[in-house]
Amino acid sequence: MSQDAAGKEIAMKPTIRDVANMAGVSISTVSRVMNAPQTVVESKRLRVLEAIEKLKYQPNGFARGLIYKKSNTIGVMIPDIESMYYAGLIRGMQDAAVQLNCSLMFCNTDRDKDRLLSYIENFYEKQVDGIIFASDALHPAYYEKMTRFHFPFVLASTHSLDYDIPSVDIDDESAAYAAVDYLAREGHRQIGMISFPFGAMISGQPRYDGFVRALRDHGLEACAAHVEFAEHRYEHAYQASRRLLEKAPNLTAVFAASDEFAMGAITAIQDGGRSVPDDVSVIGFDNIRMADMYIPKLSTVAQPVYEIGIRAIQKLHELITDGSVKQLREKLPHKLIIRDSSKPLR
Amino acid sequence: MSQDAAGKEIAMKPTIRDVANMAGVSISTVSRVMNAPQTVVESKRLRVLEAIEKLKYQPNGFARGLIYKKSNTIGVMIPDIESMYYAGLIRGMQDAAVQLNCSLMFCNTDRDKDRLLSYIENFYEKQVDGIIFASDALHPAYYEKMTRFHFPFVLASTHSLDYDIPSVDIDDESAAYAAVDYLAREGHRQIGMISFPFGAMISGQPRYDGFVRALRDHGLEACAAHVEFAEHRYEHAYQASRRLLEKAPNLTAVFAASDEFAMGAITAIQDGGRSVPDDVSVIGFDNIRMADMYIPKLSTVAQPVYEIGIRAIQKLHELITDGSVKQLREKLPHKLIIRDSSKPLR
Repeated sequence: MSQDAAGKEIAMKPTIRDVANMAGVSISTVSRVMNAPQTVVESKRLRVLEAIEKLKYQPNGFARGLIYKKSNTIGVMIPDIESMYYAGLIRGMQDAAVQLNCSLMFCNTDRDKDRLLSYIENFYEKQVDGIIFASDALHPAYYEKMTRFHFPFVLASTHSLDYDIPSVDIDDESAAYAAVDYLAREGHRQIGMISFPFGAMISGQPRYDGFVRALRDHGLEACAAHVEFAEHRYEHAYQASRRLLEKAPNLTAVFAASDEFAMGAITAIQDGGRSVPDDVSVIGFDNIRMADMYIPKLSTVAQPVYEIGIRAIQKLHELITDGSVKQLREKLPHKLIIRDSSKPLR
Repeated sequence: MSQDAAGKEIAMKPTIRDVANMAGVSISTVSRVMNAPQTVVESKRLRVLEAIEKLKYQPNGFARGLIYKKSNTIGVMIPDIESMYYAGLIRGMQDAAVQLNCSLMFCNTDRDKDRLLSYIENFYEKQVDGIIFASDALHPAYYEKMTRFHFPFVLASTHSLDYDIPSVDIDDESAAYAAVDYLAREGHRQIGMISFPFGAMISGQPRYDGFVRALRDHGLEACAAHVEFAEHRYEHAYQASRRLLEKAPNLTAVFAASDEFAMGAITAIQDGGRSVPDDVSVIGFDNIRMADMYIPKLSTVAQPVYEIGIRAIQKLHELITDGSVKQLREKLPHKLIIRDSSKPLR
């Protein structure tokens, strides 16, 4: 780039010509990187992307769709497609996408960092208009890669305090509080919890915090030690529940961080010779479809997963179309649903 | 096309030049339609596709990947992502895809014909190397569109008798037979069934046929009338089970066409004041993850869904790489698993 061009850069926004000059390619190559990246050899493509990054070239703020060719396709990153939690979320996204006349493509990341990063690249080559990133914590490497590719993206059922990224989820702390407060009001004094590990799941810490705050408000601080941690699956929750029942045999209630965990807890309690809810009450979290099909039907804190899915797609569409969103971190209301797995202790 | 070119056509395979001539475009446009279709305006693209079709131009048999630019991406059509059945299938596909170093993109069709057709187009523009079509009957319109776009495709957990399309599934008739034969051997004489509707689901008729054949082999023909039909969901199965119990109150066993149906049947039986398995035995089908988490744990005919997923991806890879597959319709073994929802009647 000439001294002159560098001087101009300070005064005005970089143009596609500046990008082409810096990358040493033609303007049409820059255009192809934006509109049909898979037709450009990787070395050139990377030079163009680097130039775009260095010059902070943004065709029109975040409104990539206005300049880039729109594909009317949205990419969705799902951490674990076998978890029943995502089914409801996906259904909401699907219905919103149909309304907006766009297609969804899902990728199952299996919570594998490398796979997630390679899917971002894949979505770039497939020219999706934007990405929904579901549930897990937003790792700096993911953030960096998505912004590098100038992807508009929205967090669904998770959020970030480190970055200003639009998100849709619930207030996990007060949702957990509602469940434990209910149990204490209904007379339970020995309450335990099967928790997510902190860190990996953005909802791990706040659900635990809500549990502890409710205990404190009812003068049950001692119960804060009645916690066991489980990874994401039923099997882990079953084992964690066995450990919990061993260390706190007097429990009359268990708050589980997910419905799948609640199922693991119920099975562990019954395998230990006690019944749910007659001996031990169990309250889950999420209100997945299965909560109502299970025997006993699960008491649970309902997340509006379907609505989260809908709002996430609408928000992404707003971001793609307007270049910004009105409400950055959107919280939808939770709801305590009491069914057959819990009862008052009187 | 000149008389001469038409004459040559009989003698030798059509070339890319013949396609370009017929479509009235340049050779490079034909090439772009194959390698970056979204860069070609729709009217030209359709003319090229029509010419390819009329001339039966096939770059190299079915081995599209050898001439077309490979994207190392496979598209997967899922009929209902909320159904737990697909979770296991998807996991198998995912693990096989990682082995082959390719990415999967899922679309949820919701069993909507128009949406499915538009997803095929979408996959075409995204240049996936091939498609896995899961579970439902292969409608002629789907077949036509996939062959028109020269997509290598494989049927997973379904098959076609009308077309010679590679498929991986189980033998539904003998799997259903195994469940009902077991119930009869264990002393049950009043056996009912909650069946899929015939037609939509390729497994509807054969599972019913297996039920009827087992009854006949045990001299229980009269039970063949003890059938109610349900759509794909728990709620429908619950209602169908209420109807079944009303018309055949003496049933001691119910064979359900899926595990989700078995859960609906168990809930209906218990809501009617009888217990499972003490009063009525229930056997499901599929062995979804939840079968083992349910209370009572479900007796079921296990489909090797994970292996079906693995084999479907491997088969598609074989088709893309070699242009053909060794075994057209592959059947994997089922397995009867007896857990807590059924017991002998003695």
